[in-house]
Amino acid sequence: MKVVLSLGGSVFSDMEKIREFAEAIETIARENQIFVVVGGGKLAREYIRRARELGATETFCDYIGIAATRINAMLLISSLPSAAKKVPEDFIEAENLSKLYKVVVMGGTFPGHTTDATAALLAEFVKADVFINATNVDGVYSADPKLDPEAVKYDRLSPHQLVEIVSKNSARAGTNIVIDLLAAKIIERSRIKTYVILGTPENILKAVRGEAVGTIIA
Amino acid sequence: MKVVLSLGGSVFSDMEKIREFAEAIETIARENQIFVVVGGGKLAREYIRRARELGATETFCDYIGIAATRINAMLLISSLPSAAKKVPEDFIEAENLSKLYKVVVMGGTFPGHTTDATAALLAEFVKADVFINATNVDGVYSADPKLDPEAVKYDRLSPHQLVEIVSKNSARAGTNIVIDLLAAKIIERSRIKTYVILGTPENILKAVRGEAVGTIIA
Amino acid sequence: MKVVLSLGGSVFSDMEKIREFAEAIETIARENQIFVVVGGGKLAREYIRRARELGATETFCDYIGIAATRINAMLLISSLPSAAKKVPEDFIEAENLSKLYKVVVMGGTFPGHTTDATAALLAEFVKADVFINATNVDGVYSADPKLDPEAVKYDRLSPHQLVEIVSKNSARAGTNIVIDLLAAKIIERSRIKTYVILGTPENILKAVRGEAVGTIIA
Amino acid sequence: MKVVLSLGGSVFSDMEKIREFAEAIETIARENQIFVVVGGGKLAREYIRRARELGATETFCDYIGIAATRINAMLLISSLPSAAKKVPEDFIEAENLSKLYKVVVMGGTFPGHTTDATAALLAEFVKADVFINATNVDGVYSADPKLDPEAVKYDRLSPHQLVEIVSKNSARAGTNIVIDLLAAKIIERSRIKTYVILGTPENILKAVRGEAVGTIIA
Amino acid sequence: MKVVLSLGGSVFSDMEKIREFAEAIETIARENQIFVVVGGGKLAREYIRRARELGATETFCDYIGIAATRINAMLLISSLPSAAKKVPEDFIEAENLSKLYKVVVMGGTFPGHTTDATAALLAEFVKADVFINATNVDGVYSADPKLDPEAVKYDRLSPHQLVEIVSKNSARAGTNIVIDLLAAKIIERSRIKTYVILGTPENILKAVRGEAVGTIIA
Amino acid sequence: MKVVLSLGGSVFSDMEKIREFAEAIETIARENQIFVVVGGGKLAREYIRRARELGATETFCDYIGIAATRINAMLLISSLPSAAKKVPEDFIEAENLSKLYKVVVMGGTFPGHTTDATAALLAEFVKADVFINATNVDGVYSADPKLDPEAVKYDRLSPHQLVEIVSKNSARAGTNIVIDLLAAKIIERSRIKTYVILGTPENILKAVRGEAVGTIIA
Repeated sequence: MKVVLSLGGSVFSDMEKIREFAEAIETIARENQIFVVVGGGKLAREYIRRARELGATETFCDYIGIAATRINAMLLISSLPSAAKKVPEDFIEAENLSKLYKVVVMGGTFPGHTTDATAALLAEFVKADVFINATNVDGVYSADPKLDPEAVKYDRLSPHQLVEIVSKNSARAGTNIVIDLLAAKIIERSRIKTYVILGTPENILKAVRGEAVGTIIA
Repeated sequence: MKVVLSLGGSVFSDMEKIREFAEAIETIARENQIFVVVGGGKLAREYIRRARELGATETFCDYIGIAATRINAMLLISSLPSAAKKVPEDFIEAENLSKLYKVVVMGGTFPGHTTDATAALLAEFVKADVFINATNVDGVYSADPKLDPEAVKYDRLSPHQLVEIVSKNSARAGTNIVIDLLAAKIIERSRIKTYVILGTPENILKAVRGEAVGTIIA
Repeated sequence: MKVVLSLGGSVFSDMEKIREFAEAIETIARENQIFVVVGGGKLAREYIRRARELGATETFCDYIGIAATRINAMLLISSLPSAAKKVPEDFIEAENLSKLYKVVVMGGTFPGHTTDATAALLAEFVKADVFINATNVDGVYSADPKLDPEAVKYDRLSPHQLVEIVSKNSARAGTNIVIDLLAAKIIERSRIKTYVILGTPENILKAVRGEAVGTIIA
Repeated sequence: MKVVLSLGGSVFSDMEKIREFAEAIETIARENQIFVVVGGGKLAREYIRRARELGATETFCDYIGIAATRINAMLLISSLPSAAKKVPEDFIEAENLSKLYKVVVMGGTFPGHTTDATAALLAEFVKADVFINATNVDGVYSADPKLDPEAVKYDRLSPHQLVEIVSKNSARAGTNIVIDLLAAKIIERSRIKTYVILGTPENILKAVRGEAVGTIIA
Repeated sequence: MKVVLSLGGSVFSDMEKIREFAEAIETIARENQIFVVVGGGKLAREYIRRARELGATETFCDYIGIAATRINAMLLISSLPSAAKKVPEDFIEAENLSKLYKVVVMGGTFPGHTTDATAALLAEFVKADVFINATNVDGVYSADPKLDPEAVKYDRLSPHQLVEIVSKNSARAGTNIVIDLLAAKIIERSRIKTYVILGTPENILKAVRGEAVGTIIA
Repeated sequence: MKVVLSLGGSVFSDMEKIREFAEAIETIARENQIFVVVGGGKLAREYIRRARELGATETFCDYIGIAATRINAMLLISSLPSAAKKVPEDFIEAENLSKLYKVVVMGGTFPGHTTDATAALLAEFVKADVFINATNVDGVYSADPKLDPEAVKYDRLSPHQLVEIVSKNSARAGTNIVIDLLAAKIIERSRIKTYVILGTPENILKAVRGEAVGTIIA
């Protein structure tokens, strides 16, 4: 099976977390090919904030953010014996590396894309069997659960429903969006089986095993 | 002055058009630095349609589309004595080339971005004085003028208004969107002076001279 | 067995043809390693003609032609599940990719080389067991069969005879040359078993099976 | 005049410091070509420590350290209007960029080299008129001033004396070495005029003006 | 004026010769842009002979020959203060470097091309005003002067005559060909003013000044 | 088992030697993964000497030396059917190639590193089981055996002892150092099992079999 995992940069603030995720990834790699796309997390936010203050354009800040995701990717690779040490710079390179290593870890690729969108494009490109979006909420809600006590979590959504919910929420200022619109549209057009889960090693393993967890888009 | 021009691929179906646009670009280059971002046009559409039929993923189709924009860029370069012969692959390379040549012509860069978004990111990156979006309508309308006879053309919009109009129209299926949402958001965040014009050599020259043409976003 | 196939760009004008060739290539790939070198065909001719008219040098036209072959390569790749998605840019990269994928598709590489010459160099580099030159005539003739009714098709030629015939015909203006002189010389120096065949999927399969078809140079 | 400045990563912990150094660098750039080589500082140390704990080899840690220096370089570039946005990856690229921009900022280049050694090699390569090593002590001492109260600061040293002092101090465990041995040997072999100074914007400006500051190796 | 000079590798066996050629090149560079394409000479021949003996294919030998030309290029660069230190790998890169440096030195580029053909393609690409082919005979002869005492040296040839003479001589075994056929054909198609001269610094300077020397193809 | 072999450039002066080493390397490759790092030998020395005389900086001479090691690597590859034809430019690329080919041959990588240091870094990076340093003496001595008749050869050293001996000998002018200090320090920090041997094919095979030969650092 081919698995693409989008892993937010927040993982990288804690050594214990990195170790646990690495263990889960290696477990998955025993019987699957896994691609991980990591975010820039605190490091990216901090450097971008400072670059912006110093006068960098937003696009140059994006380049800095990409550099941060790549350092995070290298850190994760340090804990993964099965991973390629090369952080691929595009999807073609990622696929080639996947013929040599059970685990391929990517960071960002090009200004203007989020980690989620990069991961969704990668999932589409390699024809992933499953795309796991590890986030900090436990699934897709009808509204932001922190703002709206009546928000309902969906167990299952069609790709089209996902796009509708994300579109609607994207429009509202200050809303916590669990997956970005471009990513949702890619999931829709390519009908990749997707899990939006609370990012824990256990949940990732569950999603790989096809168990009910978070929101399944299928 | 630094000018970024987004030029749809439709230009490339007609030799006379290429020559006229080339002449306008060379005229601008006499006193300005100009970057042109070209689309894939008919060539891209044709090859993507066929690749899709043959089983390519959408992301691989994007790679094919990028290759098409780059051939179009090379064709335009053939008619521009002042242009770099290298089609840059990212914004940093584009800026470096602009120190050597008065005209730099780019195509697409990375899967998942439109020509407009690429051009807007480039305009932001090089701190362009003006971003000209040469389209096939004569400006931004309140609704699609082909569908809605009461649609009104705007002469002037704030960046925020642009984002709102584009967001609203993006949501409606089958609507002809004159600029894409990511491009609009980049214009908003970086406050780049933008012209949305009917793409003719004359209109481009007018926009460079700061005359009223199309819709000005400022 | 290692097979190198030179496939003229004319294939790419017809979807049905692409599908049939792709099927033949996949059949070959089941038991062999196959490299395909594709030409630029109509796309290359069209863009080069226009670039030349716009003032491009012949060498820059070559760059455009190479870009066209690469788009054609990507289109063929779209129909080949076993092929690398990377279009290699030199022979070393092609060989490396062949360790990962049963099919590797190349386009042109460098100004001044034809598709045939590129394919012959590749065949030499990877020590191909057989080099198949798929053309639009059914073999090598003593003279151009369209001009000379007494032209005789050869079933078998030595590499040296091939060079002599190609040399002789190259000298005559307007003659239809089935393989170019540099390609013939490479075949001679490296003694690669070569088939010059009318390019149909059936003929390609025959050549791979070692059956009598077209002209065999050995 | 061509100036190469080695700037430790410690600068990057403080926004005010970055701004002051940037101002000094821009001042120098008005009448000189300046190359800055920045270190990885706290970011590199932190990520390397964690990578090592996770099982990375020292050489892979070096790659991570290099990535960190490059992010720092991008941050400094954000504050320098005259700088190339490209962080060059070798000395040839750095020299080429210096023909386009008054300021070129590099990070690390290859595993196994310190910032100082990289900067000294760059100074040699571009035939710098002056190499300024901005450190956290105010010059070269006969011994580590923190350990030996009788340590004497040198105002002036020959390149050969520098190598001798650095060699002697390198041998002693726990000694604070102000410049590394490879850097010292490069200074010796190429006789580059070198200042070892306490890294403040004022001191850097003094060194560029040829005033007495820190230790001068000539 | 733009000058392209093809310089055989034989120059590199003698330090005094390198110095004299370097001086001539620097003289030319004072008022012109000059590109030099150097051959592999004895170094290439020696390494290719040995590689072939060890079992390398001819195409891999070509890669080795290219590597040899590049070392020769670096040696020549060592004696040229005005030259780019980067040895460009294609014509586009060469043109870009020529905007930064008065002298650009190339070696070989791709398997299957001679130094002469590479130089002629470069001359065509950059629209050189003059192409100087520095050889070991004093011009183009009607036949090989070493074999045929009645061979006549031409002072002036049309491009078409050059192609005819080279074609005729190429066909005869053991004939000393002063310029290769591909190079001759490129000269013909692009009508580049060409000097075939005995390669001495004086003759090169004469050719640049437009004086009668060797054979002029125009 | 993973083997890294550092092979001085002196091998490349003699065809018979190359063949014998190639045979040994192929023998090892039957049951192991082997990486070879080759030096520049006479070719590098000769070209560097001449470049220096012509005015090249030492760092540019280093680039020339690296180019020479890469030609030597290509020559060795010519005799090795199991080797990658690509000479990797960094350690990550070397590791990737080792997944495709039983033998990977590298040359130098970056200015400022010796062959030994490059090989030691590679050994560390790929977590080699054994690092074999093939030199022109039969092991590590207490002093230079040519200068000091009482010099004692060590059969076994700890990594720390190696560093001490190399440090001590580095300090003495004109001393023949069998391994450079950076290489020794890398061996120490990564505790790679190392053989310093007289470079003959037999000794290399002995070292791979774990037999007593030269000096073992463990």
